[in-house]
Amino acid sequence: MKKRAASPDVVVVGGGVMGTASAWELARRGLSVVVLERSVPGAEASSAAAGILGAQVESHTPGPLAELSRASRRLYPAWVRALERATGIDTGYRECGVLKVAFRAPELGRLAREVAWQKPRPRVLSRRALARREPNLDAKLAGGIAYDDDARVDPRRLFRALHIAAARAGVVFRSGAYVRRVVNEAGRAAGVALDDGSVVRARHVVVAAGSWTSLVEGLGIAAGAVQPVRGQIVELETPEPLITSVVFGPRAYLVPRDDGRTLVGSTMEFVGYRREVTAAAVRDLLTAAIELVPAFGAASLGQSWSNFRPYTEDELPLLGGTELPGLWLASGHYRNGILLAPITAAVVSALVRGKASPVPLAPFAPVRRAQP
Amino acid sequence: MKKRAASPDVVVVGGGVMGTASAWELARRGLSVVVLERSVPGAEASSAAAGILGAQVESHTPGPLAELSRASRRLYPAWVRALERATGIDTGYRECGVLKVAFRAPELGRLAREVAWQKPRPRVLSRRALARREPNLDAKLAGGIAYDDDARVDPRRLFRALHIAAARAGVVFRSGAYVRRVVNEAGRAAGVALDDGSVVRARHVVVAAGSWTSLVEGLGIAAGAVQPVRGQIVELETPEPLITSVVFGPRAYLVPRDDGRTLVGSTMEFVGYRREVTAAAVRDLLTAAIELVPAFGAASLGQSWSNFRPYTEDELPLLGGTELPGLWLASGHYRNGILLAPITAAVVSALVRGKASPVPLAPFAPVRRAQP
Repeated sequence: MKKRAASPDVVVVGGGVMGTASAWELARRGLSVVVLERSVPGAEASSAAAGILGAQVESHTPGPLAELSRASRRLYPAWVRALERATGIDTGYRECGVLKVAFRAPELGRLAREVAWQKPRPRVLSRRALARREPNLDAKLAGGIAYDDDARVDPRRLFRALHIAAARAGVVFRSGAYVRRVVNEAGRAAGVALDDGSVVRARHVVVAAGSWTSLVEGLGIAAGAVQPVRGQIVELETPEPLITSVVFGPRAYLVPRDDGRTLVGSTMEFVGYRREVTAAAVRDLLTAAIELVPAFGAASLGQSWSNFRPYTEDELPLLGGTELPGLWLASGHYRNGILLAPITAAVVSALVRGKASPVPLAPFAPVRRAQP
Repeated sequence: MKKRAASPDVVVVGGGVMGTASAWELARRGLSVVVLERSVPGAEASSAAAGILGAQVESHTPGPLAELSRASRRLYPAWVRALERATGIDTGYRECGVLKVAFRAPELGRLAREVAWQKPRPRVLSRRALARREPNLDAKLAGGIAYDDDARVDPRRLFRALHIAAARAGVVFRSGAYVRRVVNEAGRAAGVALDDGSVVRARHVVVAAGSWTSLVEGLGIAAGAVQPVRGQIVELETPEPLITSVVFGPRAYLVPRDDGRTLVGSTMEFVGYRREVTAAAVRDLLTAAIELVPAFGAASLGQSWSNFRPYTEDELPLLGGTELPGLWLASGHYRNGILLAPITAAVVSALVRGKASPVPLAPFAPVRRAQP
């Protein structure tokens, strides 16, 4: 066996999109990084996500999360270009826009009023304009809101590219490494202790453990600060794509891929870590999809799966430094982890290197959840 | 390579449940049998079927098919016992009864009138009696008809047992053998010609090719005499079975397995050999299943599949001799192939050995479909 190298500069807990994006960013800046993953890289929400880059469609009120989301969306084009350059992998990033549609005029009016604060202002599409944009949508739809700057990406391709890019940049990955706690030495993070009794020493610890974050001890956050919220997804397959935009209906969203697959999502369930796909959810998702695009009735049922969004009570991520110097959190991204990956990586990279964050972090400070 | 043995007594076209059951029966009587299968044994309807032994629930009028069905059901207990003795495999045969349920009293009354001719007479269950029998059925059901003598079997287990029993009895199986036509020599069947140009000679030819029967040339039946009717099935999984009887609702049937799987079927579609599982069908099946047993809403979605029933225009099988001596048909069993396998095997075995059929065959004579 090869002798293990000296302690890395940074140990990252969690080999999902957040941890890997942060590790890649740090490695490109010359730091040595080890990523510890309890399962295999990208096993969880990172590859289960739908990949909606819904900076605006997912922002229902102005505020810091809406700003963070827009900042991350701005980073996306250059970020995926860099990934594609580094790996040759097409991440499926498409500036396709997102449509939020309504079956009745009053509902469309409500949607239009709700987005009045947004910049750029989403456009209201008439029934006819909507049909021109997506001819396979149900003709009974009253119209929709067009979020032209929102986009989509294929999370599995994105993750593969990220993982390969990080590995090529020198990041070391260890799978099956179950982190029990952060090691506190003289009031500073000094690494992490694994459940096999071993310790991985590092000057910086970044915890990006998604829905499993609260299971890591020594973070100084409440036991239930991050909770899993299950989402179920069903994939439909058609010979050609029936839609090109992401479509949000009243009861489901549809995310097309270029190859004729369309994801139909999703549920929001507090059921712990139970990874089922249930009959009632599939019934509801299929009903909603066929209601939006009747031709989906003849689509083939593809894969179905479920996974967990890392939910926080105020629905804001836990992003930034903690009360323990050297310990950084990048978790709790809830419904928008894929969207928020590049800005999160930029924030983590700046903080670990002692630079100023590119965005204000006060609203996301993990210590807001410190136990009394 | 081993030298091929002399010509067998019988060549069977089709390695599904009909062909295999017939081959087993013949081999036990001392005949040498080769089974030719275009795909792999049991690849098609034989393993896709739900396994309802619905001799009565599937018989809507008195007549020869109702008689044939009851005759086959009578054979089942001894047949599966023999299979289990020969192989040690539990075929999942369960004398569980079949319930046909109605949501409204007038519908229940109609169902009760429709079965008045049946012997034994199915019982009418009140709302309360139905709930006692199957407590997980929706409490809103008005009642049901109990077909106490109908049963179920697990077609995949049944087929595995049949295939092994036949092989142990000396039946030779050839997979990937695509039969093009029956060889007619001096006005008598003399074997079959394969698409690779080779001929398998035999004194008797039994065609049991299910939905692919019409593709075999030289049978003397119309081109579309047997057509594929697609059925889609979805499997649900619960920790414990929620029902023990087979349940027919207005829009789907439910077939429990002992391990917590429940099959939900099915559709009836003339779509050629397109093997899809479609979004609309899954939506409808799940909706119907949850309507019948609300607790299925929380069940896990299991496997889903589709396959083809060998349909004939008058819905009667093609069973018996043809205009060509030595050529026998055992096909077109439509919705009840699993049920009709033992009687079909008994008929084929008798005819090939020059004995009288155990049941009247005139209504099923394949020649009724002879081309003009």
